[in-house]
Amino acid sequence: MWKIAPFTCVLFSLALQLNGASEDGLAEQGTTGVTGRGSPAFSGRLLVVPMDGSHWANIKAIAQEVGRRGHSVTVLIPEITMRMGPGKHYSTLTYPVPYGRDVIDNILSMHSEIIRTSSKSFMGKITSRFAQVQRIKGVLHANAESLLFNASLISHLQQQGFDAVLTDPFVPTGSLIAWKFGLPTINLLRGIPCSLDMRAEACPSPPSYVPRIFTGFTDQMNFPQRVINTLVSLMEPLLCRLLYWRFDKIAYQFLGENVGIAEVLSNSSIWLLRTDFAFDFPRPLMPNVVLVGGINCHVRNPLDKDLEPWVSGPHGFVVFTLGSTVSTLPEEITEVFLEAFRQIRQKVIWRHTGPVPDKLPENVKMMKWVPQNDLLAHPGVRAFITHSGLNGLYEGLCHGVPMVMMPLHGDQPDNAKRMASRGAGVVLDIFSITVEKLLQGLNEVLNNTRYKDSMRKLSALHKDRPMHPLELSVYWTEFVMRHKGASHLRPAAHDLYWLQYHSLDVLILLATVLLVVVIVAVNCVRLCLRGLRRKRKQD
Amino acid sequence: MWKIAPFTCVLFSLALQLNGASEDGLAEQGTTGVTGRGSPAFSGRLLVVPMDGSHWANIKAIAQEVGRRGHSVTVLIPEITMRMGPGKHYSTLTYPVPYGRDVIDNILSMHSEIIRTSSKSFMGKITSRFAQVQRIKGVLHANAESLLFNASLISHLQQQGFDAVLTDPFVPTGSLIAWKFGLPTINLLRGIPCSLDMRAEACPSPPSYVPRIFTGFTDQMNFPQRVINTLVSLMEPLLCRLLYWRFDKIAYQFLGENVGIAEVLSNSSIWLLRTDFAFDFPRPLMPNVVLVGGINCHVRNPLDKDLEPWVSGPHGFVVFTLGSTVSTLPEEITEVFLEAFRQIRQKVIWRHTGPVPDKLPENVKMMKWVPQNDLLAHPGVRAFITHSGLNGLYEGLCHGVPMVMMPLHGDQPDNAKRMASRGAGVVLDIFSITVEKLLQGLNEVLNNTRYKDSMRKLSALHKDRPMHPLELSVYWTEFVMRHKGASHLRPAAHDLYWLQYHSLDVLILLATVLLVVVIVAVNCVRLCLRGLRRKRKQD
Repeated sequence: MWKIAPFTCVLFSLALQLNGASEDGLAEQGTTGVTGRGSPAFSGRLLVVPMDGSHWANIKAIAQEVGRRGHSVTVLIPEITMRMGPGKHYSTLTYPVPYGRDVIDNILSMHSEIIRTSSKSFMGKITSRFAQVQRIKGVLHANAESLLFNASLISHLQQQGFDAVLTDPFVPTGSLIAWKFGLPTINLLRGIPCSLDMRAEACPSPPSYVPRIFTGFTDQMNFPQRVINTLVSLMEPLLCRLLYWRFDKIAYQFLGENVGIAEVLSNSSIWLLRTDFAFDFPRPLMPNVVLVGGINCHVRNPLDKDLEPWVSGPHGFVVFTLGSTVSTLPEEITEVFLEAFRQIRQKVIWRHTGPVPDKLPENVKMMKWVPQNDLLAHPGVRAFITHSGLNGLYEGLCHGVPMVMMPLHGDQPDNAKRMASRGAGVVLDIFSITVEKLLQGLNEVLNNTRYKDSMRKLSALHKDRPMHPLELSVYWTEFVMRHKGASHLRPAAHDLYWLQYHSLDVLILLATVLLVVVIVAVNCVRLCLRGLRRKRKQD
Repeated sequence: MWKIAPFTCVLFSLALQLNGASEDGLAEQGTTGVTGRGSPAFSGRLLVVPMDGSHWANIKAIAQEVGRRGHSVTVLIPEITMRMGPGKHYSTLTYPVPYGRDVIDNILSMHSEIIRTSSKSFMGKITSRFAQVQRIKGVLHANAESLLFNASLISHLQQQGFDAVLTDPFVPTGSLIAWKFGLPTINLLRGIPCSLDMRAEACPSPPSYVPRIFTGFTDQMNFPQRVINTLVSLMEPLLCRLLYWRFDKIAYQFLGENVGIAEVLSNSSIWLLRTDFAFDFPRPLMPNVVLVGGINCHVRNPLDKDLEPWVSGPHGFVVFTLGSTVSTLPEEITEVFLEAFRQIRQKVIWRHTGPVPDKLPENVKMMKWVPQNDLLAHPGVRAFITHSGLNGLYEGLCHGVPMVMMPLHGDQPDNAKRMASRGAGVVLDIFSITVEKLLQGLNEVLNNTRYKDSMRKLSALHKDRPMHPLELSVYWTEFVMRHKGASHLRPAAHDLYWLQYHSLDVLILLATVLLVVVIVAVNCVRLCLRGLRRKRKQD
């Protein structure tokens, strides 16, 4: 969809900037509560190849903290991004991309569009979603190609003597660079839809109790659900081929060798998974997998002087955000929310960037940006209406706020299912929302204490961990830099073919031996019986 | 073999002693280097049901540290033990057992006996080993029965309001008490020979690269080894029945319900495994499994004034111990060692409790007890001759000392294989040792720098961990006490039958559907072809 601009190399010399030590306007993620060593004995060089959007916040927090500890950290950022930018403790290297701001804006408005098109026919919805996915894929591929085939940038990077690459392997650009430079990789991710991450880790994922993404199942599946889950797991390799075929092609072009993305990812040293078992269902893990869900869990910062008196009140308040990618809602859905909010006693803080409606109820405050984490940490908060994005859910989990979840797409329905299965809130369908349904859900979460109780317990479990997730992420990043990888954590499963891994060759041999033994035994018995019969006849 | 003395209940009233805050002579394991919170906000009550022998050191360290942090810790100890005793930060409750000191002495001399009987015929060896195993099993069963059927002790314990039980599930006495009292359990163990621990954790252990205990295989197995490993893994359930049938019977009697040891263990909250991947081969783990290998890794304490000048010298020294259960060696083997030691330049410190031979070489010092850890931490140490017991290996690993390993029995051959596969030392067979073989092995480890280099790297990996293993063990023990378990880490696999877990029911359904589809399709095609043929004939 997006062709590499042939002039990227020329542009590169103009765009290549080392923006060291410049402060950005984004909240400094996750440094609070971390008690890390300030000056490490070992000073390494880390290359960070991040992903944009909601994936950025966590990787930025790690880059910042690694830099703060005295390592040299370089973050690769395309010149046009959604949220990525410079930070206090890392340098950035920007590279040109062959698309404009309008393409990013278009993607940013995608979620709103999804909601707007919800009234379309089934086929209309499918076509619309497919077009959106293609749009995102186009940008991701164009971005990857702009970086990987920018010869002067790659050559410049190769000369920097990095010790490791920290990346989000959902888009395997960083992994390809690491493979080419022979560097160890630290992956930070939530998961890859076709379970490519699990395959690349050689991690067992029994479909009998490990629900696949997009199924909406929990770890307690009935027989039909297990059938579907198994079918999905059987189709995952095919799904991976479909999702990553273009990257497989890019890998071949970039590396000059016939190696697929699955193989490149299986070379990763450490996998930092942005989850934990207060949120996710318990499942097997490999030794090089570290759970770091909740990196973005802050301690409370005081609210603005304007906001604090507004939220204070006898009935508390509700926080309503649908993530930074849903700027406005269609008028009829906005009306549903306003009408429902009018009928509750709590105040509502609503992140809403569109025009403020005329008849805004007194208890509703619309803001273009809300200090979501600080609001969720406020003692007056009663509920969180959320699209179930992972970052938001973890903030809610961190502060123990019961939720009304309205998943939109991607991993959000699964996220919502996980929280709901633990009694932490209710799930509503935003596409068919009515005032009654919304009120029922809201009142349930606001007035039934079991949601708050469940959330309090979950939150206590989530926060009761030997080490802060950011501290742990930085520890393992430094570990990989110090030891040039973590080969002692790499299971020998990687050296086996599928048939060998599942011991099918052994089982075939054993079954054959058993069969031969049985045949021989049966024949022996038959011969003996025949002999006996003959003897009897002769007698 | 050992009957419960009917007078245990009577004896109990005499023997029940709460020995609080008395210091014992054992080294205070593992508190060095731990930076735990001194005064916890939550003060709990922990019951510790330990195992004797080498298993004691680690569990004692945890009990001490939990007690030091202000919790009430009660350790159950039989009145006759090998090594167990009181500690500064925990109370002990002793209970009578129907065997005398002589039985323990007999077991303690068992390893020496194994070496002495090494010249016996194959059948002689087997008979002798079997008798030894029976002897140990007899003591373990007698011990368990003395504790569990001591009604007044059990009733006393039930009234104490414990929050959790910390135990070594190799002997599942503590697990049975926890089940009866409805308490969560923290297990501390190296592993159970028939992989009962893995089954109870519902942890996948693919036999294709997870070597089974006693096989002596590494994680890199050739086809015949994989066949053997698979066969062993297939026979493990049977082996478990054989090993634990007596305990299954005890469980039925004690609990009054038909529940086996496997089920009791599967109820455990946290599994603290006394291993790590600097030592063991990488393999899948479950969320409630925590690796704490190296609890007993101390920082160096200075040597005695007598010993320090003796070990100091230009060529360094060798530490030689075969564990506390090998007091003396047969004369001919002692001679082999003496002759080999005579031919090396290094000094040798030998733990040896028997009479000192007349012609002791000048470079050899025999001592009834050696400060093993302090010697291994000494900069002059060049090699460690060891029986490959886990505690000793971890001390060697901690201080990076290359090893000459002479495994005797149990997990020792496997332990030795693990270290040797990482280039950390050589393995010799003590039963067929000669001066030449010993000298060759010793010189290899002393003079070939690759062993020291490998050990240095391994040691660095072992010690580079986010948290000290003792700290981590105490953390999870406190976690279980705080939250009354860790049910959020319990995989749903426990709720599935074997057939369901492996999705065999689903696969049978899918195969049936596939078969039906194929049959229908084939028949359709056949009918069509027949129709076509008829039509042609008619034409």
